[in-house]
Amino acid sequence: MGLIVQKYGGTSVKDAERVMNVARRITNVYKAGNDVVVAVSAQGDTTDDLIAKANEINEKASKREMDMLLSSGEQISIALLAMAVEKLGFPVVSLTGWQAGFKTDSHYGTARIKTIDTERIKTELDRRRIVIVAGFQGLNKYDDITTLGRGGSDTSAVALAAALNADVCEIYTDVDGVFTADPRFVKNAYKLDDISYDEMLELASLGANVLHNRSVEMAKKYNVKLCVRSSLNDNEGTYVKEVEQVEKMLVRGVTRDNDCARVALCGVEDTPGKAFQVFQMLAKNGISVDLIIQSIGNGIKKDIAFTVTEGDLDTVLKLLEDHNSMIKADEIKWTKDVSKVSIVGAGMVNNSGVAAKMFEALSDAHININMIATSEIKISVLVDRNDAERAVNAIHDKFMLD
Amino acid sequence: MGLIVQKYGGTSVKDAERVMNVARRITNVYKAGNDVVVAVSAQGDTTDDLIAKANEINEKASKREMDMLLSSGEQISIALLAMAVEKLGFPVVSLTGWQAGFKTDSHYGTARIKTIDTERIKTELDRRRIVIVAGFQGLNKYDDITTLGRGGSDTSAVALAAALNADVCEIYTDVDGVFTADPRFVKNAYKLDDISYDEMLELASLGANVLHNRSVEMAKKYNVKLCVRSSLNDNEGTYVKEVEQVEKMLVRGVTRDNDCARVALCGVEDTPGKAFQVFQMLAKNGISVDLIIQSIGNGIKKDIAFTVTEGDLDTVLKLLEDHNSMIKADEIKWTKDVSKVSIVGAGMVNNSGVAAKMFEALSDAHININMIATSEIKISVLVDRNDAERAVNAIHDKFMLD
Repeated sequence: MGLIVQKYGGTSVKDAERVMNVARRITNVYKAGNDVVVAVSAQGDTTDDLIAKANEINEKASKREMDMLLSSGEQISIALLAMAVEKLGFPVVSLTGWQAGFKTDSHYGTARIKTIDTERIKTELDRRRIVIVAGFQGLNKYDDITTLGRGGSDTSAVALAAALNADVCEIYTDVDGVFTADPRFVKNAYKLDDISYDEMLELASLGANVLHNRSVEMAKKYNVKLCVRSSLNDNEGTYVKEVEQVEKMLVRGVTRDNDCARVALCGVEDTPGKAFQVFQMLAKNGISVDLIIQSIGNGIKKDIAFTVTEGDLDTVLKLLEDHNSMIKADEIKWTKDVSKVSIVGAGMVNNSGVAAKMFEALSDAHININMIATSEIKISVLVDRNDAERAVNAIHDKFMLD
Repeated sequence: MGLIVQKYGGTSVKDAERVMNVARRITNVYKAGNDVVVAVSAQGDTTDDLIAKANEINEKASKREMDMLLSSGEQISIALLAMAVEKLGFPVVSLTGWQAGFKTDSHYGTARIKTIDTERIKTELDRRRIVIVAGFQGLNKYDDITTLGRGGSDTSAVALAAALNADVCEIYTDVDGVFTADPRFVKNAYKLDDISYDEMLELASLGANVLHNRSVEMAKKYNVKLCVRSSLNDNEGTYVKEVEQVEKMLVRGVTRDNDCARVALCGVEDTPGKAFQVFQMLAKNGISVDLIIQSIGNGIKKDIAFTVTEGDLDTVLKLLEDHNSMIKADEIKWTKDVSKVSIVGAGMVNNSGVAAKMFEALSDAHININMIATSEIKISVLVDRNDAERAVNAIHDKFMLD
């Protein structure tokens, strides 16, 4: 018996049948004696449909009105889910973001939660009601509706769990949990029972697509125990929490990220601070640079290469051209035909053999490595996009099946 | 230059093209130097679609959750309309019912507006913004969303006009204004330039289907000048206001109402108070009785006949059966094959010839009159439903073309 926060995404409530299914899950937890607070996303394609409606009228609509529009999506899903719970005969109340006390800053479309005034929710819990809260949305200081942007409903759920001091925050999705690799193309991938916040953060940012980073960061900050599990079965799921390294598993997951492009500045002057100048200029213009390598210069010329997201590539090339009087590169090369393949695991920090083992796996599979980057808990390599799936499989088999 | 409140119904904003059309109307009024506040309904079939979604899950959903669901419909339309106004390059803000300050009682689904806190709207008008308000909805004392029920958006608009002391409240619809009869089957029907509140109230309750009674009552109470006009053309429309009887027109409109059924209690005891007992019993059970006639009794037996709405008929027959030990009717007869045909006009109160003229029209057309009821500004007759359209035409020609 405790307080459980659950979050259901759009696919989990996409039609009447799924909504009833979710209602049954919720009421089962309630029947066991728990208080239940549920954060819900908009149904299935609702958000996309609303965006299409807006674009038909004004492709450059203000973000304020866009948030007004999009927040209706969760309002529909909370009402329908509450009706489903009523149908099963349990006391329930749905609350919009503002009714649930979500206060955010005023960055429409990408708002950050500042506080949650939990008074209303606590009153409803005291009445032994199941509380259904609209995820993804809040209210700014002007009393205007804001939305939290990508991964917003996960963040709403974690924020609720933190504010209410919940025993666990269960994130329901359409996969069974966090896997050692993407099971769609790695046949030996298997589900992890638990994973640390830091590992999860690396996996999320590397394209594991299960939990959004913002929600994991918040969970780490407030020490909220997360559980990622499927809304379609009763499997256990993966716990994300402060894990003691019980399993002694060096590598926890292998990921592939196709959203990257490589840019190379060939033959720039080999003077101190050159790389700094380039990356400072990019940062000023809002560009996140990921992997970086720099050739060992000969005192006259050197090469600098780095990766950015595909979406930033055109901007980056334009910026480099505009600043070439400062950069003075002989040539600027770029390609999108690359993927980043990474291994993540808190265990690898003290184990120098991990990188060598990863490179061995790639070498055995005859896969060429373009760039390498390492951090305390991950090692990333850039490979040709055509090689990426083979690379993930080779690395996964090497580490996970050993 | 002044303050103009406009209301657009669901058909006026049913798709992107119509929304842009409404935005052009609004901005034209704004460009002329006016402050503009607009109340909008949900788009086209949105409300019906949402009800269908709810019914798929729970046909007996609570009204509180139903209001949460349905109020999303106007939230979508205000955002889209605001985006359309932005597209045309004008400053605009959309406000939900609660943002616009609508406070209601707690009768979910049929809430009554208690007050409008106009501070937010006035601030936005001071900034020279066009203000788009979600009609049909408000907030009760529990901070829960309520809806106003049938005709709610008209009522929202009139309440806004009253609270803001607007110069006029324009109700946009898909007809050109208030007609002397339904132009769909009375070919000589023509549009009225103006009409009094009381006449409009009778016409609305008699099935003219242009303005909901609640909004007219409120307009009368706060002396709000209404204008009913089409959103599809620039025709003048009909003004509803305190009219001095300039035109000397006895009859202002002829209406037909098919939503009625006749019940006859044949051979009840001719004792004092018998009719009172019957109608008190019906009233206690929430049944509105419309036309009533009672035969002149012979001291032993008499007949009592009355009309109710078709929707109430089954309930009424059950009630009469349950209470027949009190009523003691020899026979209870009923039929749905009747229509109520009425003439309305403030001029008729002092003119005893009006009723005779109406009966003459019906007699000339060989239409039998079942029942008759008169008030200060209307005369209603019950005729066979098959005769109703002919009856309206005959009366209309007699009065309007004389």
